[in-house]
Amino acid sequence: MERWDSNVGTSAFHMPEWMIQFADQKQEFNKRPTKIGRRSLSRSISQSSTDSYSSAASYTDSSDDETSPRDKQQKNSKGNSDFCVKNIKQAEFGRREIEIAEQEMPALMALRKRAQGEKPLSGAKIVGCTHITAQTAVLIETLGALGAQCRWAACNIYSTLNEVAAALAESGFPVFSWKGESEDDFWWCIDRCVNVEGWQPNMILDDGGDLTHWIYKKYPNMFKKIKGIVEESVTGVHRLYQLSKAGKLCVPAMNVNDSVTKQKFDNLYCCRESILDGLKRTTDMMFGGKQVVVCGYGEVGKGCCAALKAMGSIVYVTEIDPICALQACMDGFRLVKLNEVIRQVDIIITCTGNKNVVTREHLDRMKNGCIVCNMGHSNTEIDVASLRTPELTWERVRSQVDHVIWPDGKRVVLLAEGRLLNLSCSTVPTFVLSITATTQALALIELYNAPEGRYKQDVYLLPKKMDEYVASLHLPTFDAHLTELSDEQAKYLGLNKNGPFKPNYYRY
Amino acid sequence: MERWDSNVGTSAFHMPEWMIQFADQKQEFNKRPTKIGRRSLSRSISQSSTDSYSSAASYTDSSDDETSPRDKQQKNSKGNSDFCVKNIKQAEFGRREIEIAEQEMPALMALRKRAQGEKPLSGAKIVGCTHITAQTAVLIETLGALGAQCRWAACNIYSTLNEVAAALAESGFPVFSWKGESEDDFWWCIDRCVNVEGWQPNMILDDGGDLTHWIYKKYPNMFKKIKGIVEESVTGVHRLYQLSKAGKLCVPAMNVNDSVTKQKFDNLYCCRESILDGLKRTTDMMFGGKQVVVCGYGEVGKGCCAALKAMGSIVYVTEIDPICALQACMDGFRLVKLNEVIRQVDIIITCTGNKNVVTREHLDRMKNGCIVCNMGHSNTEIDVASLRTPELTWERVRSQVDHVIWPDGKRVVLLAEGRLLNLSCSTVPTFVLSITATTQALALIELYNAPEGRYKQDVYLLPKKMDEYVASLHLPTFDAHLTELSDEQAKYLGLNKNGPFKPNYYRY
Amino acid sequence: MERWDSNVGTSAFHMPEWMIQFADQKQEFNKRPTKIGRRSLSRSISQSSTDSYSSAASYTDSSDDETSPRDKQQKNSKGNSDFCVKNIKQAEFGRREIEIAEQEMPALMALRKRAQGEKPLSGAKIVGCTHITAQTAVLIETLGALGAQCRWAACNIYSTLNEVAAALAESGFPVFSWKGESEDDFWWCIDRCVNVEGWQPNMILDDGGDLTHWIYKKYPNMFKKIKGIVEESVTGVHRLYQLSKAGKLCVPAMNVNDSVTKQKFDNLYCCRESILDGLKRTTDMMFGGKQVVVCGYGEVGKGCCAALKAMGSIVYVTEIDPICALQACMDGFRLVKLNEVIRQVDIIITCTGNKNVVTREHLDRMKNGCIVCNMGHSNTEIDVASLRTPELTWERVRSQVDHVIWPDGKRVVLLAEGRLLNLSCSTVPTFVLSITATTQALALIELYNAPEGRYKQDVYLLPKKMDEYVASLHLPTFDAHLTELSDEQAKYLGLNKNGPFKPNYYRY
Amino acid sequence: MERWDSNVGTSAFHMPEWMIQFADQKQEFNKRPTKIGRRSLSRSISQSSTDSYSSAASYTDSSDDETSPRDKQQKNSKGNSDFCVKNIKQAEFGRREIEIAEQEMPALMALRKRAQGEKPLSGAKIVGCTHITAQTAVLIETLGALGAQCRWAACNIYSTLNEVAAALAESGFPVFSWKGESEDDFWWCIDRCVNVEGWQPNMILDDGGDLTHWIYKKYPNMFKKIKGIVEESVTGVHRLYQLSKAGKLCVPAMNVNDSVTKQKFDNLYCCRESILDGLKRTTDMMFGGKQVVVCGYGEVGKGCCAALKAMGSIVYVTEIDPICALQACMDGFRLVKLNEVIRQVDIIITCTGNKNVVTREHLDRMKNGCIVCNMGHSNTEIDVASLRTPELTWERVRSQVDHVIWPDGKRVVLLAEGRLLNLSCSTVPTFVLSITATTQALALIELYNAPEGRYKQDVYLLPKKMDEYVASLHLPTFDAHLTELSDEQAKYLGLNKNGPFKPNYYRY
Repeated sequence: MERWDSNVGTSAFHMPEWMIQFADQKQEFNKRPTKIGRRSLSRSISQSSTDSYSSAASYTDSSDDETSPRDKQQKNSKGNSDFCVKNIKQAEFGRREIEIAEQEMPALMALRKRAQGEKPLSGAKIVGCTHITAQTAVLIETLGALGAQCRWAACNIYSTLNEVAAALAESGFPVFSWKGESEDDFWWCIDRCVNVEGWQPNMILDDGGDLTHWIYKKYPNMFKKIKGIVEESVTGVHRLYQLSKAGKLCVPAMNVNDSVTKQKFDNLYCCRESILDGLKRTTDMMFGGKQVVVCGYGEVGKGCCAALKAMGSIVYVTEIDPICALQACMDGFRLVKLNEVIRQVDIIITCTGNKNVVTREHLDRMKNGCIVCNMGHSNTEIDVASLRTPELTWERVRSQVDHVIWPDGKRVVLLAEGRLLNLSCSTVPTFVLSITATTQALALIELYNAPEGRYKQDVYLLPKKMDEYVASLHLPTFDAHLTELSDEQAKYLGLNKNGPFKPNYYRY
Repeated sequence: MERWDSNVGTSAFHMPEWMIQFADQKQEFNKRPTKIGRRSLSRSISQSSTDSYSSAASYTDSSDDETSPRDKQQKNSKGNSDFCVKNIKQAEFGRREIEIAEQEMPALMALRKRAQGEKPLSGAKIVGCTHITAQTAVLIETLGALGAQCRWAACNIYSTLNEVAAALAESGFPVFSWKGESEDDFWWCIDRCVNVEGWQPNMILDDGGDLTHWIYKKYPNMFKKIKGIVEESVTGVHRLYQLSKAGKLCVPAMNVNDSVTKQKFDNLYCCRESILDGLKRTTDMMFGGKQVVVCGYGEVGKGCCAALKAMGSIVYVTEIDPICALQACMDGFRLVKLNEVIRQVDIIITCTGNKNVVTREHLDRMKNGCIVCNMGHSNTEIDVASLRTPELTWERVRSQVDHVIWPDGKRVVLLAEGRLLNLSCSTVPTFVLSITATTQALALIELYNAPEGRYKQDVYLLPKKMDEYVASLHLPTFDAHLTELSDEQAKYLGLNKNGPFKPNYYRY
Repeated sequence: MERWDSNVGTSAFHMPEWMIQFADQKQEFNKRPTKIGRRSLSRSISQSSTDSYSSAASYTDSSDDETSPRDKQQKNSKGNSDFCVKNIKQAEFGRREIEIAEQEMPALMALRKRAQGEKPLSGAKIVGCTHITAQTAVLIETLGALGAQCRWAACNIYSTLNEVAAALAESGFPVFSWKGESEDDFWWCIDRCVNVEGWQPNMILDDGGDLTHWIYKKYPNMFKKIKGIVEESVTGVHRLYQLSKAGKLCVPAMNVNDSVTKQKFDNLYCCRESILDGLKRTTDMMFGGKQVVVCGYGEVGKGCCAALKAMGSIVYVTEIDPICALQACMDGFRLVKLNEVIRQVDIIITCTGNKNVVTREHLDRMKNGCIVCNMGHSNTEIDVASLRTPELTWERVRSQVDHVIWPDGKRVVLLAEGRLLNLSCSTVPTFVLSITATTQALALIELYNAPEGRYKQDVYLLPKKMDEYVASLHLPTFDAHLTELSDEQAKYLGLNKNGPFKPNYYRY
Repeated sequence: MERWDSNVGTSAFHMPEWMIQFADQKQEFNKRPTKIGRRSLSRSISQSSTDSYSSAASYTDSSDDETSPRDKQQKNSKGNSDFCVKNIKQAEFGRREIEIAEQEMPALMALRKRAQGEKPLSGAKIVGCTHITAQTAVLIETLGALGAQCRWAACNIYSTLNEVAAALAESGFPVFSWKGESEDDFWWCIDRCVNVEGWQPNMILDDGGDLTHWIYKKYPNMFKKIKGIVEESVTGVHRLYQLSKAGKLCVPAMNVNDSVTKQKFDNLYCCRESILDGLKRTTDMMFGGKQVVVCGYGEVGKGCCAALKAMGSIVYVTEIDPICALQACMDGFRLVKLNEVIRQVDIIITCTGNKNVVTREHLDRMKNGCIVCNMGHSNTEIDVASLRTPELTWERVRSQVDHVIWPDGKRVVLLAEGRLLNLSCSTVPTFVLSITATTQALALIELYNAPEGRYKQDVYLLPKKMDEYVASLHLPTFDAHLTELSDEQAKYLGLNKNGPFKPNYYRY
């Protein structure tokens, strides 16, 4: 039996009252839904906590202050000093950012409102380690509104928005994070969240697994009181499954990365738009009539192919999995091996999660002006390292755009040095971040409130009913009206009127 | 733990040598792939064995012969009389039909060729109960070529093609089936397959569960020797799960209805085309500019919506499941309740699997000329019964097309009396039937050859590797070229080079 | 200066009051818009008056009556005998057909209502020669309602619906036409329309040019009183331009074939749907994943390509015109020469208007099972004659479907023997016929009412304002709401608020 | 007769030998086709010569030099001083820019190669007034290579790239232009091009009409030697038609703005991509599920609608022209009046060419967060002026993005202050500029070489054959292979094998 199937039985699962009636929800938070004004920082880049974070920027200029936050003595306006941020005085600016983000995250705001009576996280002591952005702040303050105590560190040394961290600290959240931490700072911050006198966490929210790792290494006894881990990143989830396999996972963990709603938005829907955006912003190219090969026809590849086909490109697909390959055929794409089209295509896009999909040999055979980029998980899909040889000249022609020039003058256009195009050269819409944050909040609520025995020391997917609930909270944005089952219909289908509506194996 | 997750662990699973190398398969059977010449009979209609089968027809006219086949004494050219068909003399015509079908079912023909050395079904004694058509004949003869002995009855009293049954009998397959059986004939035929002196089945291939039911009822001891059941229909699968729940399932059963490949072709890909075909053949309407509401955004609904949008219709969607609802939004369809648009739409299509989705109240409010049809599983999605009232006049204007006329002269156009539009008013392409038949053959091979203990007395989904294999056998039709993992890549991904390539929970 | 530009100056052109306000038209005829119930006969096939008309059929069986209508003495219920139809007693059935068609032709019905006060055709004596179908009857009776006297013959010896002709005769229209005329009958009927004592036509409505030809040949003096010719077919228009070139055109003629609205519906919109319908009805093939080459990227080709791409086919295009070729590129189709893809494609569709686009050499190189069909104007696009050689075997496998079999067993599937697929194997929606009939009616009104000197002895396109008016009359079907220019906006744009809205060279 | 129809008769028209064989052109210039490296400057913004040009930038920093170029004494390396640019020393950098542009303008480079023997512009003395960019430089140097002498000024005081101007001067082209001219400088530069001792222009290439205006005003006698004017902008073309109407146009003029190829690329194809790009770059919004209304369904509107529909938006259309309205219906868009949807839409896009399409009243009724932008010709489509009232607060949140805030807190997001979104917030691909420049070059060749009498003192559209030639020169970029007519086919169609292939009224 595969560990992946460790879903809790749906019949054993009951949602609290305040969650139930999503068919006719009021649209009270739908009033200010549009992401406008500032580029949002992506949430999902945590390949490692020391990745450089290309687009991160402070809104206000604080570069003149060279003192390390660790050496400063700061207090918020209430005299509290249990935090460590760059500059508490930036709080007001950060608060405004958070307020704008609130307008664009209607689901979390709806959650605050619905659960305010019941306080489903009352008693929860959550330690979190994520990017610190306005969107995360909305999440953290939502957890607070639901009754939780939180302590928070950054999962990436570059990605913190200092003003937002200041605003959280001003509001009384113990935040330990600033932009430009050293590695030592990084672990120090995490430790300050965990190692507190008179306070012990009973829930973990992690993004990348560093916080979980630290507690395993330094404070293994802490797990006795911990009710569960919620992990969002591919990397962190992978680590958890390894722990589980090794029999070392000592609390339930929830893999929210693979929930249906989050997956569809992070991959299919988001990439359908960001492939066009990333290519345009970097190259100003015209899509019409271009020949493109997309390597990999999973959700990301499906999104890229659909968008480019719609813009008039001629798209070829490569695949290793015959089922996805057959889907590509039925969707109208010629299925080829990369070598068959490498000489003729204008653009090559990798979306495989694999390594060395585009090799130096492929790069040698591309035509002049060919554009190469990566939309997949791994930085190694394109063998960029193989291009660092003396006979090739690199020319940086624009931010994120390199021309690699062959001795005969041929140029290959490499975007973002083979890193993720959509994170490096595009932005992640707040709506996508809202899906993720809502999923995290619900996973925390579920793990914290689950009766004894529902979850064992294993890695679980988000219960389908919770997944459906995340989706339902986002429907008002589209003025979308859900139909409710009649009693007779529910009986006929053998379903509860409030879901879950599909068996676990349903593919969407 | 949900029973639906009863997949065999992929790590424990090995494919025989002859299956393995699908990446570079030769295309020897790709030569005559096109379905041409005759309307194929649909395979999947077995709602019950006595449903009328609207498009069924004999190729040759044998109506003059009124004698019951049970009363005839017939022998094939080798003197064999272990069969019961309408007229053994029609064998030659049927053989030609089978030969045409062979050209359109390249996957089964490839299977014959690959497995001819090994004979993976050597020793298998298969009793089958399906529609008897040219496509089924290709399946039966493939099973024979792989080493099996087969006995066969029809799963529907109307759907047998007499000429094909004759051809099978002539080739030595004991077939008991003709077009227009009585219910008594139906069970007699099944019994003649099962109850044979000196022969006892060890495998069951069923479509609808009638054969399985008969053995349970009459010959329960037979299960001692039976290695497994392969069931294809929704109805039959439902029965098996009920048996399993009740603890009465005494052999492993394989639910091939829910394999990925079959599902996508039966639902998404097939319906994307047949919704247009069914509407055109019945009404000659123009799609451009029409307002349509599609009830249900599962695979069938997704196919219908995509096709109609592409033809210039304006499409609305209703849903009960918030996840599917959010997908509809992201795909560009307004999500409404049926009442919101019922007065303005030109066409209503149900694809829910639910009952009374379109009620008499809805029908009363539709505008004049509105077309109503059903693409879903159930006959009860449209409450047709509610239209059988004295104040409404029914006028049959064409085969499968009724005008229901209100007292004020308003006409509602009801297609196929609310039965499945795609089966009643369209045809199922042979390519779709080929996917199903290949899935059945591989399921039989797997169950028959599985080592002790791999399968218990439960209902299983087809192992993903088998599902992938079905897909791979159909790629040559599209001249599609699969990429093979390098050793290094397979290691990096932690995959076997020959699959399975995805975790069980993967959604495609 | 090209004769094609002979549009009347738009500034010199005024519409009558009753036409003007189309922005807010009431939707009184929108109540029963759906084509249902019977297959409509196509209107546009008149390649010659003796073409066989494959789908023509009488609704009632009158084949037992072998007497020629010319030999019968018939009177309608009012005692009138100025007509010649198959059987006046079929009038009632025909009337019902006409009533159904009226519901599907809202634009003509709106015209009747709007113009009923003014009678813009008062005094017009129209002689017509078209197919005689329910749709034409709606046109003829509309002309009558607008004040015209009409006499009518058929433009094709097979296409008359006898019941409809009877209904027209019963209502007092002198109709001379029946299904299955001899060539002698054909000209006799035309002559009976023209050569009447005490009645001389002053307008001609022709489809194919035979009526015009007859008057030129037999009664040239009649042109002195004729105000104009309205011609609908490509063939007839071609003849008129030849007359004009030769200086022999002695009255103004209006080419309604090339009006914008009619062209878009006859070609782009109609073919986008009928290519799918024609292929499905003949072959039951699946479109997904199929490789298709479309020869010609004019309106018909654009429609075919868009539809097949949307259904998941991989589409290649051939073109001779570089502008259309560039459009194909920008729309995402690979532009090839036929030879480049002839061995790999599954379907070949010609839409060029050219001859020998698919040659015997191409046919020799096609793969087994390849489907060949024609959507273009000419019967000679596929060199079908070259296939009538002894070494090839023809096998008729279904109506309109031939297998042509090469000595090595290869089969090519030829549809409709190379004739127009959409007319032979599909149906023309009534909505398309409504566009054409409305265009004809407006052209007659315009020519009849034009002030001296507006039109000379030349061939004209329909004035743009009339073209716009045809479109506006069809918008209510879609519940479409046109925006009206404010006075200020009209002034800013230099336009009349009621149109025309575009310069003559505008391309749409 | 409308002046718009003033096309030269196609039969009177012969192309020179070197143009003819475009079906099998070699792809020698296809080697480096991709636009990469720098944002190109748009060519088409010349609403007036003093418009601010938002994205214009020098590549190198020359701001430290405050001396007016008119006061400087500069010589190029050959000692020539007949030019006036910012800094001749920047020539090398500018040359590199031109070389990159050459790779992206294959059609002009092909023209150079084909015409190098014949020198079709030998003896031509062209005075030009356009934006001075790398793409224009490729055009100017092409004209030189074809035999012309050129003198050049800028048509906009902000748009000159100083480095490119320097490179042209260094190569011996008398260029008078720099970034940041005063209005006095602007006319001085034009005068320096025209008013030269011993040199008198015989051809004019204008963009906006300022050069033409200057000659009319100051040197009317010069027209005696001028063979023709080629004008590209809407504004300039409008001026020419006014001159013609007033009987004051004293030489032939060619309106290249309305050639088929240029129109399709400037409008349909370019806007299909730039609407997405412009919206993403300014707002980072997600398109999926958004409700959008597009005002105007001409080429620009069609492009916007197609793109947004493909990205999953729900699109409504408003129109005044019933023909375009019917097209919108058939393409699957609901046709509404703006008021019907103003409260519900997330985005409003104007593409009408009209004024006050979006009024203050509309703006008052929009929902919070609604985005408003303009893709049409006119700056006045959105009544931006009406928003400059005291009760509304404007907040600039990003470059080109304003929040207009109502007293109740509602925000409307206004992009580019209602100016053209695609020019302000997106870039024009070089491929589109290449189409325009090639059209200009061919128009100059045609007017210069036309035999006496072919063109009179009127405004002409580019002959169709030339239009086709422009298209054919761009096909190699797509590796597109044109089919050639056989002699037999050409005869059958009554066409010349080398085109033109369509009548003038053909709509594409």
